[in-house]
Amino acid sequence: MTAPQRQTFATPSGTLDVRVRDLALADSGRHQIRLAEHEMPGLMALRAELAESQPLSGARIAGSLHMTVQTAVLIETLTALGAQVRWASCNIFSTQDEAAAAVAVGRPEDGGTAEAPRGVPVFAWKGESLAEYWACTDEILTWIDPATGEDVGPTLILDDGGDATMLVHEGVAAERRGAVESDPQPGERGYSAERIVFLETLRRSLAADPGRFTRIAAGLRGVSEETTTGVHRLAQLAERGELLFPAVNVNDSVTKSKFDNRYGIRHSLPDGLNRATDVLIGGKTAFVVGYGDVGKGAAEALRGQGARVIVSEIDPICALQAAMDGFQVARLEEVVDRVDFVITTTGNVGVVTVDHIRAMKDKAVLGNIGHFDNEIDVAGLEAVPGVVRTEIKPQVHEWTLPAEDEEIGPDGVVRPARPERSVIVLSEGRLLNLGNATGHPSFVMSASFTNQVLAQLDLHAGAEYLRLQVADAEQDQERAHDGELASSGEVRQEGAQEGTGFDVHRLPKALDEKVARLHLEALGVDLTELTKEQAEYLGVDVAGPYKPEHYRY
Amino acid sequence: MTAPQRQTFATPSGTLDVRVRDLALADSGRHQIRLAEHEMPGLMALRAELAESQPLSGARIAGSLHMTVQTAVLIETLTALGAQVRWASCNIFSTQDEAAAAVAVGRPEDGGTAEAPRGVPVFAWKGESLAEYWACTDEILTWIDPATGEDVGPTLILDDGGDATMLVHEGVAAERRGAVESDPQPGERGYSAERIVFLETLRRSLAADPGRFTRIAAGLRGVSEETTTGVHRLAQLAERGELLFPAVNVNDSVTKSKFDNRYGIRHSLPDGLNRATDVLIGGKTAFVVGYGDVGKGAAEALRGQGARVIVSEIDPICALQAAMDGFQVARLEEVVDRVDFVITTTGNVGVVTVDHIRAMKDKAVLGNIGHFDNEIDVAGLEAVPGVVRTEIKPQVHEWTLPAEDEEIGPDGVVRPARPERSVIVLSEGRLLNLGNATGHPSFVMSASFTNQVLAQLDLHAGAEYLRLQVADAEQDQERAHDGELASSGEVRQEGAQEGTGFDVHRLPKALDEKVARLHLEALGVDLTELTKEQAEYLGVDVAGPYKPEHYRY
Ligand SMILES: NC(=O)c1ccc[n+]([C@@H]2O[C@H](COP(=O)([O-])OP(=O)(O)OC[C@H]3O[C@@H](n4cnc5c(N)ncnc54)[C@H](O)[C@@H]3O)[C@@H](O)[C@H]2O)c1
Ligand SMILES: NC(=O)c1ccc[n+]([C@@H]2O[C@H](COP(=O)([O-])OP(=O)(O)OC[C@H]3O[C@@H](n4cnc5c(N)ncnc54)[C@H](O)[C@@H]3O)[C@@H](O)[C@H]2O)c1
Repeated sequence: MTAPQRQTFATPSGTLDVRVRDLALADSGRHQIRLAEHEMPGLMALRAELAESQPLSGARIAGSLHMTVQTAVLIETLTALGAQVRWASCNIFSTQDEAAAAVAVGRPEDGGTAEAPRGVPVFAWKGESLAEYWACTDEILTWIDPATGEDVGPTLILDDGGDATMLVHEGVAAERRGAVESDPQPGERGYSAERIVFLETLRRSLAADPGRFTRIAAGLRGVSEETTTGVHRLAQLAERGELLFPAVNVNDSVTKSKFDNRYGIRHSLPDGLNRATDVLIGGKTAFVVGYGDVGKGAAEALRGQGARVIVSEIDPICALQAAMDGFQVARLEEVVDRVDFVITTTGNVGVVTVDHIRAMKDKAVLGNIGHFDNEIDVAGLEAVPGVVRTEIKPQVHEWTLPAEDEEIGPDGVVRPARPERSVIVLSEGRLLNLGNATGHPSFVMSASFTNQVLAQLDLHAGAEYLRLQVADAEQDQERAHDGELASSGEVRQEGAQEGTGFDVHRLPKALDEKVARLHLEALGVDLTELTKEQAEYLGVDVAGPYKPEHYRY
Repeated sequence: MTAPQRQTFATPSGTLDVRVRDLALADSGRHQIRLAEHEMPGLMALRAELAESQPLSGARIAGSLHMTVQTAVLIETLTALGAQVRWASCNIFSTQDEAAAAVAVGRPEDGGTAEAPRGVPVFAWKGESLAEYWACTDEILTWIDPATGEDVGPTLILDDGGDATMLVHEGVAAERRGAVESDPQPGERGYSAERIVFLETLRRSLAADPGRFTRIAAGLRGVSEETTTGVHRLAQLAERGELLFPAVNVNDSVTKSKFDNRYGIRHSLPDGLNRATDVLIGGKTAFVVGYGDVGKGAAEALRGQGARVIVSEIDPICALQAAMDGFQVARLEEVVDRVDFVITTTGNVGVVTVDHIRAMKDKAVLGNIGHFDNEIDVAGLEAVPGVVRTEIKPQVHEWTLPAEDEEIGPDGVVRPARPERSVIVLSEGRLLNLGNATGHPSFVMSASFTNQVLAQLDLHAGAEYLRLQVADAEQDQERAHDGELASSGEVRQEGAQEGTGFDVHRLPKALDEKVARLHLEALGVDLTELTKEQAEYLGVDVAGPYKPEHYRY
C-alpha cells in the first residue's frame, strides 16, 4: 500500500492538516470511540468536571502516542478542556486507521465529514515507513498561527517513549553546533536504519530553518511521558543537566505502571498472540524475558491460559518474586530449544540474540512487548546467510533458517547440526500487542490517560512542584521519611544545579488516588471510609493520601 | 498452667538468666532449629561470611520478636557474629516453647544441657499474661556487667511492633517528668487492660531506679524494626522530634514487605485456620479486611484454597488493585451476614466492631492477622450482655451470642431478630498465624531476618546514612529522581531539625538486592547477567543496583 498524502482542508476557523489512511473510515472509528468512552470513566469524569472552565485553553499540545481508539478519547478530552492538539503515533504499526480518521473528522457535534473534516490534525496510519514516521513526528511540532502565518510551536508535549522530546533535544543541540552529526556506519556504535532516517529529518529542518528547534524548546512548558523507556531517557537528560523543560513521569503513577503495564499487558498479550497466530497457548511452554510490571502481567496471562511459564531476570529481587509466584527462573540460552513462545518485556537491548533464535524450536513464536525493536536482534536475523522471510500476513513473518551442520565455536562449545526450521516473528520485533492487536483495552488506558491529562493540566498551569530543580525535586516527590505522607506542595529552592536544572517529577499521590477513585464505580467497587478515630490512629486524613510516598502497593 | 519462674544458672563466663516453659524441651527445639537452618540460606550465608571477623563484637542486643524456631536461627546468627543477646517475645501467644528452651540451652557445640544451660538469656513462653509479657520486655533491657555488677544496658534494640522501643521512650519521658501518668479509666481515651499493666511496669522501674531508662537510651546506638505497625510508631516519634536514637525500617526492604508480609501470610494464614478449626476453606466465602501486602497474601491464599474472597479497602488504589485481581470489593457491614471467614489485615483499630460480629453467620470464624488485638473489638464483645465464651482449645474460643429481638436503631435502621448463634474467635483477636500456628515458614523469615542482621550491623557500625537528620534522610533514601539509582552513601547535612533530629531509615537497595541474591540458589533460580552493553543502555552497573529508588516491584 502506498502511504497516504498530507491534505489540508479549509475549516470555519482556518485550515486543518491531516495525513491518515482514509477519512471514510471515520464512521466506524466514531462507533468504536463511543463504546470506548463508556469504558473510560476517568477521562469522561474529567470532561464533566472541567469542560466548562476550559483549563487547557491556550495550550498547544504535540502528542506522540499510539493513535488508537483509546487515544482518540484522550485527544478529545484534551480538546474538550480547551487545548489545541496535533497528533502522531509513537510506533509505525500501532495506529488504528479508523480511530485516526474519526479524530481528524471530529466529533459529531462539530459537524465534520470525511469531505470537510473539522477535527484534530492527525498524522498517523498503520504501517508507516521510518521516514514517514519521523516526518509525522516532525509535523506535530509545526504550529502555524492562522493569523500571522508564523510557526509558534507547541507549548506542551505528550510523549510515549520520548521520540518527540528527543527530536526537540537533538534538534536544539544540532542548531547550537550548526550541524547535524554525520551518519554512523553499519556495525558502528549507535548505528540503526532508524538513526539514519532520524538524522536526515534533523538535517532537513536545519537546512530549512536553523533556529526552529531552539524556538520550539523555548516555547515549551514541559512534557508528560507515558512509559518506562521514555522516563528513562528523560532521567538521563536531567542527570546530564540537559533537560530543556520540566517533565512529568506519568509512568510511575501507581495507577499507571501498576495497572497499564501489568493488567493491560495481561489482557493484550494473549490477544496479540491469538490474532497473529491462532496457536493454542495452553499446555505449551512460554518464556518471558523480564519480570518487571510488564513481565508480571505477561506471565500471569500465559499461566492463565494454561501455559507453563519460564521467566528470566537480571535483578535478584524480581527473580525471587518470580520464584515465589511459582515460575521457573532460567537463562534463555539454557531452555530456548524447548519453548514454544518467547516474549520479551525488558525495555533493554539485545535480550534475544541471533544465537538464541537459531536455537529455537521449529515454528516457535517470538514477540516483543517491551518498547523498541532492538530488544530482539531482528537486524542480526536479517543478516543470517540463507535466511528467508515469508510474510504470512502483515506484522506476522515466518523466518526460515537454513539447515546447519554441527559447528564447534571458538570457545570449544559444540553447536549441534540443525535441520531447516522457521520461527514466527511478530510485528518485526516491535510491540506485538499494538502491532498484532489493538493495544491495551480502554479501561486500563483510562487510568493511564487520566494521569496524562492531570499532568498536562499541571504543566500548563505551571504547578509549583514542577519548578523544583534537579535533586530538590526528589525531596518533594519522595519527601516522606518513613511513615510521612506525600501531601502539601512544599517547595524548596536551594540554588540551581549545573546545567538547565529542569527535572523529572511524578504526580502527587493525591492525584494518583483520585485517578483510582474515578475508576471504582464502573467496577462496582464499594469503598470503605475510615472513621475519624481510625484515621487518627493511622495518622492520615480521612480523605487521603493514605500511604507514605515509598509505599510499593 | 502456672507461669515458669526466672532461673539463674552459673556458666563458665558468669551467669545466665532464663525464663522459659521447660528447658527439657531443648532437644526437640534443637532438631527443629537444625531443619530451619537448612531453610534459611540468607542467615547461614551471613554466618559463613562474617563469623570469623566478629563484626558484632561489643554489641548488646535486646530482642523483642516472636520467640519461634526461625527467631532462634536469627539469635544464633547474631551471637555467631559476636553479639551478646537478651530475648523476649513481642506477643503473648507466639513463643514456641521448644525453640525458647533450645536457645537458652545453647548450641550443641557450646556443651549446654537442660540442667546447665549455656545459651542466650530468653524470657518467653507461650501464653504469658500481660503482666508477665511486660516483665519479660523489661528483662531484655537489663544488662548486668558480670565484672562490675553494674547495669550497662543494651546497645541495640531489635524490635517487632515497637514495644521495647516504646518502653524506653515512655520510660525516659516519665523519668524526665519524675512520674508516670495516671491510669486511664475504662471508657476513657487510651484505656486498655494492657495500658494499665504497661504503666505499672514503668512505675516499678521508676521506683527502683529513677534514672534507668535515661541511661539505657543514652547507651543505645539504634533500633531495627521488623513490621509495619512498629515503623509507623517510629515515624510518629521522628515526626514529633522525639526519637531518641536512629532507627532502621526493615519492614520496607522489598525483600521484607513484599515477601514476608505477602508470601509469608499466604503460607501461614491457611495454616493457622486449619490448625485452629479444621474447617474446609474451599467453596466458602471469606472476607479479607484490607488489601495491602498482608491482605494480598491472605486473599491469594484463600482463593488458592477455592474460597470466594471479598475484600474491603479504604484506599482507592488498593481497592482498584483488588478489583483488577478479580475480587469483589465491598463494605464489611453489607456482606458480613453471608461470609464464613472474616480476616483482618489492616494494622488499623476497630475494623471489626461488635455490630459486625453480631451480624455474622452462626459458627463463622473471625481472626486477625494484622498486629494488635484492637483490630477486632474483642473487648466490646466481652461486654455484650449474656455473651458466653467457651474455650474449644487454647487460642480457639466460641463466643455464643444470646438471641436478639428485632430492634430499631436510633437511625431508624431495623436490625432483624436473631436466634442464639456463635462465632469462633482465634487467638483472642491477636495474630492468628502465630497464635494458632507457628508463624511464617523459615524461608520467608530468612529473607526478613537477613535484613535484620544487616540493619544491626549498620547500626552497630554507625553507618553513615544513619547519621542523617530528619528530612535530610529522605534525600538519601529516596534521592533517586526519576530513573536515578540508589547507590552511593552521599550524605547531606543541613543543620539539625527541631527535637532530637534522629530519623527512620531504610536499608540501601544494594543490601536489599544482596538479601534476594542469597535466597536464589536454594530455589534453583538461574539469574541472568546483564551484558556490559545492556548495563550501559539501562544506565546501571552490571552488579546492581538495578532499579530507581521509587521502583515498586
Ligand atoms: N507493550 C506495551 O503496551 C507496553 C506497556 C507498558 C510498558 N511497556 C514497555 O515495556 C518495557 C518494560 O516496562 P516495565 O514497566 O515492565 O519495566 P520494568 O523495569 O518494571 O521491567 C523490566 C524488567 O526487565 C528486567 N531485565 C532487564 N534486562 C534484562 C535481561 N537482559 N534479561 C532479563 N530481564 C531483564 C529488569 O530487571 C526489569 O525487572 C518498557 O520498555 C516499557 O516502555 C510496553
Ligand atoms: N501476622 C503476621 O505475621 C504479620 C506479618 C507482617 C505484617 N503484619 C502486620 O499486618 C498489618 C498490615 O501490614 P501490611 O504490610 O499489609 O500493611 P499495608 O499498609 O500494606 O496494608 C494495610 C491495608 O489496610 C488498609 N486499611 C486500613 N484501614 C482499613 C479499614 N478500616 N478497612 C479496610 N482496609 C483498611 C490500608 O489502606 C492498607 O492498604 C500491620 O499491622 C503489620 O504489622 C503481620
